[in-house]
Parts: sequence; C-alpha cells; structure tokens
Amino acid sequence: MAAAAKPEIAFIGLGAMGFGMATHLVKQGYTVTGFDVWPPTLERFQAAGGKTASTPAEAVRGRDYIVCMVATAVQAQSVLFEGENPAFNALSEGASLLLCSTVPCAYVQSLEAQLAEKGRGDILLVDCPVSGGASRAADGTLSIMAGGSDDALQKGRFLLQELSDTSKLYIVSGGIGAGSNMKMVHQVLAAVKILAVSEGMGFAQCLGLDLAYALEGIQNSDASAWMFGHRAPRILTEFKPIASAVTIILKDAGIITSEALRVGFSTPMTGTAEQVYLSSLGRGYGADDDSSLIRLYTASTQNTLSSLLKEDQAKKLALVQGLLRGIYLCATAESLAFARRCGLDLDQVYDLCVNAAGGSSVYEAVGSEIINLYRGQQSDTGCHNESLQDVASRLQEAVVEAQRLKMPLYLGTEASNLIRLALQHTSGQTQSLPRATIAKVWTA
Amino acid sequence: MAAAAKPEIAFIGLGAMGFGMATHLVKQGYTVTGFDVWPPTLERFQAAGGKTASTPAEAVRGRDYIVCMVATAVQAQSVLFEGENPAFNALSEGASLLLCSTVPCAYVQSLEAQLAEKGRGDILLVDCPVSGGASRAADGTLSIMAGGSDDALQKGRFLLQELSDTSKLYIVSGGIGAGSNMKMVHQVLAAVKILAVSEGMGFAQCLGLDLAYALEGIQNSDASAWMFGHRAPRILTEFKPIASAVTIILKDAGIITSEALRVGFSTPMTGTAEQVYLSSLGRGYGADDDSSLIRLYTASTQNTLSSLLKEDQAKKLALVQGLLRGIYLCATAESLAFARRCGLDLDQVYDLCVNAAGGSSVYEAVGSEIINLYRGQQSDTGCHNESLQDVASRLQEAVVEAQRLKMPLYLGTEASNLIRLALQHTSGQTQSLPRATIAKVWTA
Repeated sequence: MAAAAKPEIAFIGLGAMGFGMATHLVKQGYTVTGFDVWPPTLERFQAAGGKTASTPAEAVRGRDYIVCMVATAVQAQSVLFEGENPAFNALSEGASLLLCSTVPCAYVQSLEAQLAEKGRGDILLVDCPVSGGASRAADGTLSIMAGGSDDALQKGRFLLQELSDTSKLYIVSGGIGAGSNMKMVHQVLAAVKILAVSEGMGFAQCLGLDLAYALEGIQNSDASAWMFGHRAPRILTEFKPIASAVTIILKDAGIITSEALRVGFSTPMTGTAEQVYLSSLGRGYGADDDSSLIRLYTASTQNTLSSLLKEDQAKKLALVQGLLRGIYLCATAESLAFARRCGLDLDQVYDLCVNAAGGSSVYEAVGSEIINLYRGQQSDTGCHNESLQDVASRLQEAVVEAQRLKMPLYLGTEASNLIRLALQHTSGQTQSLPRATIAKVWTA
Repeated sequence: MAAAAKPEIAFIGLGAMGFGMATHLVKQGYTVTGFDVWPPTLERFQAAGGKTASTPAEAVRGRDYIVCMVATAVQAQSVLFEGENPAFNALSEGASLLLCSTVPCAYVQSLEAQLAEKGRGDILLVDCPVSGGASRAADGTLSIMAGGSDDALQKGRFLLQELSDTSKLYIVSGGIGAGSNMKMVHQVLAAVKILAVSEGMGFAQCLGLDLAYALEGIQNSDASAWMFGHRAPRILTEFKPIASAVTIILKDAGIITSEALRVGFSTPMTGTAEQVYLSSLGRGYGADDDSSLIRLYTASTQNTLSSLLKEDQAKKLALVQGLLRGIYLCATAESLAFARRCGLDLDQVYDLCVNAAGGSSVYEAVGSEIINLYRGQQSDTGCHNESLQDVASRLQEAVVEAQRLKMPLYLGTEASNLIRLALQHTSGQTQSLPRATIAKVWTA
C-alpha cells in the first residue's frame, strides 16, 4: 500500500500498550486519531505526531479502521456504547473494528451480537488480543491472536501485520472469540508461571540458597521458563523496575477462571494462583511488581544465608527444580485441556505458547506428548524419559521440605495433589507412566 | 474392679489434654505417677493428688499401665527411647502402653516395630488417639479411637473406658495404625471445617452481613456444622478466649498431608487448608485462636456494615450457605475416600464423624450416599434431592461474587474446581447427578 493511500485510523485507549501501538502506526505514516480518558496522555500523543479527539464518537467518525486497546471489557463496553458520545454513534459503514484488549471470549461474542442486534452487522469486527509488553508494542513486534470472519480478517490484516512480528501473527480459526480463547489459554501458563517465580525463588531463599546461584541453576536446566528468566532477576533488584503489577496478571487470571466457570471447566492451578494474587491485595501489594510476591513465601523465615557446601547447594537447587517442573507440568496440562475444551487448533496453540512468555522446557517437552495423547497416539517416549512418577516424587521431596520449613508452597501443593489424582486414576498400573498422563485429571 | 485393686498408672505428658485425663484418673481412685518436662505442671499435678516422677523411666518403673499423651511423634519418640532415662529402659514385663497422642499412622507402626526389634514384643501397645478438647478430657468423656492386638485392647480396655464417653469409644479393627488412621480421616473434616469458619464468616462480612445474623442463619440451615457452631461465636468476641491455636490444627493437617504423600493419596482440600494455615504463620497469627483467620479474608475490604434490605440479606446469606455446602461436600468426599484408601470400616468412620467435631448436615446427608456408591449400591436419592450440579451452581455464585469483591475464597475455589473435575469425568451425562458423584474425583 503506497504511503499516500494509507487509511486514517481511530485509536481508542492510549495506555502503556495502546500508546506504543498508536505511535508506532504514526511512525509508519498513518494518520492516527487517538482517544483516551486521561487528558495528559492526549497531549503526549499530539507531541508524538498523533491527532486527538475528545470523545470516542469524534475519534471514529469518518474512519474506516478502529483499534480499541482499553484495559477491560467494562471499558470497551463503555467507549463503544455508553455515555453521550460513544463510538457506536459514529461508526462508518463497513468499518473495521479491531478489539485488541484482553477480554473474556464471552464479552467479544456479546459485542458481535450487540452490533448485529443494533443493525450494524456491517461492522467488520476482529477479536485480536495482543501479547508482548510495552516495548514490543512500540516496535510493532507484538504477538497477536486474531479471530473473526474471513472478510473482517482480510480487511484488517494489514493493520495486524503493522502491529505484529512477522512470525507472531496467529490467525485463529473459529470466528469471534477464538482469538480471545487463544490468548486465554496462553495466560493460564502466564498466571501460573508468574507466581511460580516467587514460589521457586521464595523456596530457594528459605532453603538458604544464594538467589543468583538459584536463578542461574534453574534457567540452565530443564526447569527453565521464559517467565522465570524475565521476572526472577527483578527479585535480585528489589522488585524494581516495576514492569508488571500484580493487578495486571490478577485481571487475566480472573478472565480465565470466570470463563472456566461459565463453560464448566476446571482450572485448579490458575484458581490457586488467583487466590494468592487476591490475598496479596489484602497486604497492599497490588500495585507492586509481581516478582515481589516472593514476600508471601519468605515472611516466616529469617533471611539467613547459610554458607552451604557445594554438594548441599546442588541438592537444594534440585529441590527447587523439582518443584518448578511439577508446577509447569500441571500448568501445561491445564492450558492444553482448556484449549481442547475451547475447540482450538492444538498445534497452533502449541506453536504459539512454546515461543511465547508462557513457554518453558517442560511445556516444550510434554505439550506435544499431551496433544498426541488426545489424538490417541502413543508418544514416542522411550524408557530414557522421565515418568510421571518421577516428577511426582521429585515434587514431593520439595513439598515435604517446605512443610518442614513451615513455608507455604501454594502451587506445588496443588500440583502434587493433581499428579496424585492422575496416578490414582491409573491405579493398578504400576509401570512407569509418561508425564502426559497428567492430562487424565481433566479428561477421563 | 474394686477400688483397692486399681492398678498404678504412669502418665507421660501433662499438657492441656494430658493433665485433664490424668487428674480424672486420680479422681477415679487410681494412683497416677505423672511426668512432664515442664516442672510447674508437676507441682500442679501433685496439688491435684497425683504422684510425680523426674524422668520417664522413673514414671513407668514397676507400673503395668502407661499412658503417653505428649503432643507429637517426635516427643513420643524422645520420652520413650531417647535421653538418659527414657521410658523404654524401665518398661515392666507385659506392660500396657497406650499412645493417646495424635501421630501419623507410620509413626505408631514404627513404634511397634522398634519395640519388637529391641526384644520387647511383650509390651501391649494400643494406638488410641483421642478427640474432644480439654474439658471432656477432664470429665473422662473423650472420644477415643483405639487399635491394637486383641490382647492389648483387652488389657487396656478398662482404662480407655475410664477416659471416654460410653458411646464414644471406637475399637478400630486393623491393628496398630488403625486408630491413628481413624483420627486422621476425621481430622480431614476438622482441618477443612476450621478454615471454613473463617472463610464463611469472612465472606459474610465482605458481603456486608451482620455476623450474628449470618451465624444464626447458617447454623439453622442445611449448611450447619459442629465446628462452625463451636468456632464462629468466637469471631464475635474478638477471637477470645483462645480455645485452639492455629498451630494445633496445622499440626494435624501436616499429619494428613504427609501420610497422604506417603501412600500416594490426593488431599486437595486439606492441602489448601494447610497452605493457608502456613501462610498465617508468616503474618504472626500462629498462636492466635484459629477463628481469627477471618483476618485473612477481610484484609482488603473495609468493615462497612451496610444496612441491607431483608430480601438482600437473605440472598447474601444464601451465597454463604452455598459456599459452605460446597466446601463440606468436598471435605466429606476427601475424608471418606482417604478412609477407604486406609482400609477402614466406612460404617464406623461415618458413625464416628457424624457425631464428632467434624460433623455437618452435609456430611450426614451425603456421607452415607458416598459409602453406598463405593459399594456399588444405588442411593435412594429421589428427584427431590439436590444434585451435584445444584451444589456446583450455588458454590459458583459465591465464587463469582467473591471475585467481584476481590476477596480470596481458598477452599471455595478449590471445591468449585474439584466439583467441575467430577462433572467433567461424567461428561456426556446431562441428567442430574447425585451429590455423591463428587467421590469420582478420587476414584475413577
């Protein structure tokens, strides 16, 4: 598309993510009219070369492309339909509406229904939540998971491509709701693994390990995870800079658990993480960086760094690794079981998650085994692979040690109980079971 | 037995329970020689008519009956075998040894093995944990769950009868370990229901209900429970008097979860409760009355008692009742599944639990249905009974409301996820399922 032909774009919601995305579009030569409820942001956006509007209706009037990047479904509903000058009042015929906010599948489906009921079935809605953080938003290299009608995807595609990395634009089949579901099953991994950073590092601290040693030992092992590498270093710098507040992952966890309730699906790992996030609000930690939740684990122990023998260090590191691997195994199974329940393409889910913030060594190894198990295919796990019983016994060593230390391991305890449920359901089978057998907790 | 013929008794461990039991025996005309590590207690025991000894060996020397009522397995091992003058050094030929402490099954079995290995297979060991609190200890009306060889039970029986209520002496078949297992499966109910007091009352408070109204409304409904009636009133009196510290139920929860780990059984409800108890240690609540854990639920809400309409009050009360009934259903199933796994007589388990501190309306109604289900018998639940789906939907209303209030519901979330797992395992069946179907979570 020639520069001169670049269409005008309305951009609603100029928060940390939205501001970066909108200014990226400005840099690419688009005329972007921004709206936000926070006036200083509008001034900043003008300074960055954007145009601004004082109401959602004004922003979208006469524009063929609308990106909505507000924080929640409640905000989306508000800017689109509520107040004196909602966007709905001024939507152009056949306009593209890209909802990039992370919202429940149920909300974006209701949005499609509301448009149809109000006689605006012409609007080309795309359900396209993003992932990747503020800096990738500003670079136009986000991951985007987009669902919608063929027409809507075709018309909006160039804009999705502008905002995303070439290899990270996922067109998700299944229509409106599928993009949100794809993001949701990824966030199962994120919600569990963000808390696992604090649980793992908190356990390491209570064991008397040097935290830099623990971080390195974990990330250089089969207990590594993207989120651990991203968040754990912040524990070493007193939870600074604040990269992602507890309330942000709490919101995503709430989307997962409320959607799970709605469709009758069980999410015990995410549920456990959500309860811990909620409990941290009561301690005033809501606005703090999520890595600071290590404080929930270390409160009852004195921070006495004992000088351990190398051999003891290695043994204690193995306990932390066993804890994390047990947690990651259960998160992998919960995420894939939910993806299957949502009718998503599991190969695409795997491809997205393995390379995204939710990924881990365990996900990479076991995720494909679980997908094979769903398809009734025998995994090609030879006897050299770790069994579910092995994972269970290593996790249990960690749980027993934490009990001795009188510290909580919320996720580890939940994972340990889930693995034992899976083993109970296969009782009578005394041979080694593949790790993917954990999936039987969710499906008989 | 004529008063003159009453045998001499050694009594080791004169804590809150032991002191009451030992002085009760003194009042019944026995000569009781007490030992405790805390000298002031010995003075009090002398003042109450007891004799005292300065070492465990001195207490048991020449006595045919020994009652051990120390707090933990570690203490039992210590007084029996360790130090300079352990009881073992002075055990009479064929003496009765009644271990009344609450200990893991594995410990009391190891005690039997240790005695045999050391050539003292003549000792008539009885595994007989008690329940009922300090006042019933002093009255000789405890509940006692006793296992052991026929000889040991026969010789020790009069003493068990002195200490227990006539209808509450349970002779548990299965030998050494069976008494401890019986107590353990009861404590599954206690560990969950003690936290449920705080979770239910905390939820009521966050909903803006008057707590006295909530307490009455709950106990006069099918959401009633013995523990709720016992503990919740203390919330109204600022957690005073301190009747049972958090650390006490935490210890019992630890016995349950470590035994569960040992035998490969899953205890997600008890595990959740234990993690919350552990987290409260970090906040300095360990020595406080366990009813004070309501503070874990109300921290993020202002204590604003709104003046609700009667109709709204009733609706909110129903939410709390739905929460508690969902929790109690899962606790019932976890306790009975564990009892079955331990090979206990389920009718006896039911008879004990329904009348004890772990009992509740839900246990009474559903416990027998679950036992019937294990036996392959159809329950006689007519269509007038509540279904598992009903329990699920009422519990979910509570979970959704708590999510909206941004308060944690640790047990409610766990229970909701377990019920959904049970429903997932019966997917395809769309008709109403009996509540006892929850047991399928633990047994395929």
